Amino acid sequence: MLNGYTLPRTPKGNSSLAPSPPWHYVGTCLAVEYEADPGAVASFLPPGLEFNSSNCAAYFAEWQYASESGEEYLDPVRSQYHETIFLISASYEGTPCGYCPFIWVDQDVSLMRGLIQGWPKQIGSTWITRSYDLPSKAAPSAGPGGRFGATLAVKDRRLVEAVVTLREETRQPPNPTFAGAVLMRYFPELVAARHDHPAVHELVRLKSRDVRISPIWKGDATLRIFDNPYLELPALRPTRVAAGYRFSCALTVDDLVFLRNLRE
Amino acid sequence: MLNGYTLPRTPKGNSSLAPSPPWHYVGTCLAVEYEADPGAVASFLPPGLEFNSSNCAAYFAEWQYASESGEEYLDPVRSQYHETIFLISASYEGTPCGYCPFIWVDQDVSLMRGLIQGWPKQIGSTWITRSYDLPSKAAPSAGPGGRFGATLAVKDRRLVEAVVTLREETRQPPNPTFAGAVLMRYFPELVAARHDHPAVHELVRLKSRDVRISPIWKGDATLRIFDNPYLELPALRPTRVAAGYRFSCALTVDDLVFLRNLRE
Amino acid sequence: MLNGYTLPRTPKGNSSLAPSPPWHYVGTCLAVEYEADPGAVASFLPPGLEFNSSNCAAYFAEWQYASESGEEYLDPVRSQYHETIFLISASYEGTPCGYCPFIWVDQDVSLMRGLIQGWPKQIGSTWITRSYDLPSKAAPSAGPGGRFGATLAVKDRRLVEAVVTLREETRQPPNPTFAGAVLMRYFPELVAARHDHPAVHELVRLKSRDVRISPIWKGDATLRIFDNPYLELPALRPTRVAAGYRFSCALTVDDLVFLRNLRE
Amino acid sequence: MLNGYTLPRTPKGNSSLAPSPPWHYVGTCLAVEYEADPGAVASFLPPGLEFNSSNCAAYFAEWQYASESGEEYLDPVRSQYHETIFLISASYEGTPCGYCPFIWVDQDVSLMRGLIQGWPKQIGSTWITRSYDLPSKAAPSAGPGGRFGATLAVKDRRLVEAVVTLREETRQPPNPTFAGAVLMRYFPELVAARHDHPAVHELVRLKSRDVRISPIWKGDATLRIFDNPYLELPALRPTRVAAGYRFSCALTVDDLVFLRNLRE
Repeated sequence: MLNGYTLPRTPKGNSSLAPSPPWHYVGTCLAVEYEADPGAVASFLPPGLEFNSSNCAAYFAEWQYASESGEEYLDPVRSQYHETIFLISASYEGTPCGYCPFIWVDQDVSLMRGLIQGWPKQIGSTWITRSYDLPSKAAPSAGPGGRFGATLAVKDRRLVEAVVTLREETRQPPNPTFAGAVLMRYFPELVAARHDHPAVHELVRLKSRDVRISPIWKGDATLRIFDNPYLELPALRPTRVAAGYRFSCALTVDDLVFLRNLRE
Repeated sequence: MLNGYTLPRTPKGNSSLAPSPPWHYVGTCLAVEYEADPGAVASFLPPGLEFNSSNCAAYFAEWQYASESGEEYLDPVRSQYHETIFLISASYEGTPCGYCPFIWVDQDVSLMRGLIQGWPKQIGSTWITRSYDLPSKAAPSAGPGGRFGATLAVKDRRLVEAVVTLREETRQPPNPTFAGAVLMRYFPELVAARHDHPAVHELVRLKSRDVRISPIWKGDATLRIFDNPYLELPALRPTRVAAGYRFSCALTVDDLVFLRNLRE
Repeated sequence: MLNGYTLPRTPKGNSSLAPSPPWHYVGTCLAVEYEADPGAVASFLPPGLEFNSSNCAAYFAEWQYASESGEEYLDPVRSQYHETIFLISASYEGTPCGYCPFIWVDQDVSLMRGLIQGWPKQIGSTWITRSYDLPSKAAPSAGPGGRFGATLAVKDRRLVEAVVTLREETRQPPNPTFAGAVLMRYFPELVAARHDHPAVHELVRLKSRDVRISPIWKGDATLRIFDNPYLELPALRPTRVAAGYRFSCALTVDDLVFLRNLRE
Repeated sequence: MLNGYTLPRTPKGNSSLAPSPPWHYVGTCLAVEYEADPGAVASFLPPGLEFNSSNCAAYFAEWQYASESGEEYLDPVRSQYHETIFLISASYEGTPCGYCPFIWVDQDVSLMRGLIQGWPKQIGSTWITRSYDLPSKAAPSAGPGGRFGATLAVKDRRLVEAVVTLREETRQPPNPTFAGAVLMRYFPELVAARHDHPAVHELVRLKSRDVRISPIWKGDATLRIFDNPYLELPALRPTRVAAGYRFSCALTVDDLVFLRNLRE
């Protein structure tokens, strides 16, 4: 009998790319809140979501992960990854929510967990400035005036650059937030004549527990999205940048809310 | 309206990780035919497949890929990838076939195309000796006595090493072959209490067209599979190595044969 | 006129792999203090250094770097890197010091700066557990009982694994320390018959300024060095592991102490 | 006693990043011959070289390497690498030669061998279209009309893109050629007040033996060099593209010609 939460399924079930939930995460995020062209935002929404506003957010995060039984963080190539998330505003049945048109990570385990949740993950290279508890010309302070950068490259092309300058603490996280975001699970068919009839096509809402958030720092930000011959992200380029943020968060995922089947 | 064969689905449909089929491939393979413990082979077979023999094969390939409209090979970071495939013997309704318990690639586009076909792809680092049309101490000749190596590392650990010494041409490709292999498509649910009830769980048979094979070289081989704390591949370690092979092949994929639903 | 502190030298001097010092660093280190075979330790010492003891240390660090004028940390792919350092004990003219037989980094800029200082740098893949200021099953606490792992892989082979369990704060850094270590600068000739007559072959002592050290945590440790067909590091395998450490440090480098010319 | 051609020097001398010459190479090159601004070309020449013409060439190569005793190509992560080379025209004591202002490779072993020869190597990501002996939509033919691409990215930014369309065979290799190129060896001092007084600063001429060249294909080409905030390569951007080339070559290196000491 084969076991395992994902492929590859094996006799002992130890080899699955992603193990069974729960999945525990902790990470540090740099975020930029901004507005994009409203028509562009609307054009990226799937059936079932309505346009809510032109507010968008870009998150850059470095995560550490562990499964329930495992101590993946002791062999950290199995645990650590970087992520760039874009969220746009939407509403589902009248309730505002975030929706993710693009996301990049740098580990296959994270990519697989993401696909299962409806994150449209691809592999990309994200780098984020770190802060340390020692004064140094090699790092910003994690307080007023501290400047943090983040970059994303995809297939050997720089796609995004952000700089956030911290000003003050706030109680308000960036908006849209990835907590409770609506995503689209999608798994296609390859059988001829079924290429447009996916096996899985559904709206879902993210669910997490044991969420903890550090104090949130807010400040000024810049965000550049570069032209790209293949990726449509530049359509969501900023028309106005609202603010930058930096904070840490921890959360656990072992559930998802099914919203709506989008298969015909 | 959103378009695209896979996530991310976008207004223009240009940004999907994998574009719509057909997918065209050409590559050079090094292969090792070997026997493993029969009980181990049987233990890796999914429901619907029966044990046929203890014959296995490891393939190491460097591929170049293009979609129908695209010329991905002109921006080769979008096109080229390395792959290590393990195949074990099985039979489906009395007909012998290969089945893939493990496979590793080094590009996300290939990983996504693979999951759709039922290949249990993970990210790994494969290296394969090349031959050139010039005499050099830096390369083997692609003929009698030429020695070719291949290695696989996963998450910073060496997992497989092979060396093939060419002896003579043959008309017989290695067995089991990946043409017509039976695979398992599997896409899990994350909704609580549904973790063991996948959305997709089915047996499929690979289908390709416009297959072209170069002359096939055959010879001696060694194959080492190293201990690994997480991956069950060492259970399929060689008890006897039969032969090594080297050849190129080209093929096009735009179809798949549905065999059996494995959902309860 | 060409300018720049290292190759490539260019009209503006902006393109050198390593810019002119000073070089500012800040990073977090995991370290393991251990003993190796005394004969092995002695066999790795260059002329001018005498055997002092069998004490060794392995350091795993994630660094962020900036040049004097630059803000490399805002484009962090230019600034951040991981490092694994091995130090053995020695004495120079009767004064104890560390000496570095092996070191691996994951960025070319760091490799070049290292060669100039006499660090025998190669490219390797180092991963180190992180701690966060939030409770999570995905990270250890940076206090008593917190367990941190580190791994090194070189050319797709796992070479080193360490785990450190923190117990208590200490004022004593690991020994040998990289502060004041003696290194060997070496730059060979390629002109035929001069292969054994290097252009540069000298003992130097590291010098740094503005050094700041965080509180130092000490505890238990394990350290494994795996067999390797090419690298002689396993000769320096632990015979006894003394302790593990975790701390951050910041420093600036713009000088070096010349000790002795080793050219014939 | 310590042994080894480069750091790290060890008791057995097996661990040096680059082993003792001879070094054997075989690879396939895509090249673009072009003209740049004459003033820019002149501004990149070191003392001892005079301006000859505005002819430049960009080479993109995938190499396989072996040392004299070794069979590195059987563990190909130790042997294979990609390279992008820029050459500008110069003359030394009245004789035309190429000079290399910029070069990128993707392996540390190659970087070290390069520094010793005077190649100003940095780490970069080069991708080059491959041809196969089978007809496929996934690869160009290695003959008339075959289109080959090459790209270079450095620190997560695309820097160069080229496309070569083959037209006909030629006996004339691209000009300037890397055979006999003049390079600058340079190894700085870090001792304070000596930062501008390098330990090694000399003009040398490349020397190779057992050179073999495949038939050379020539055709049309495009070459784009993208803006970059740090690298001065865009100053050598094409004002006119002359031709594209594709060929393989094999060579052995174990010597170098000393031309002139540039230390004051």
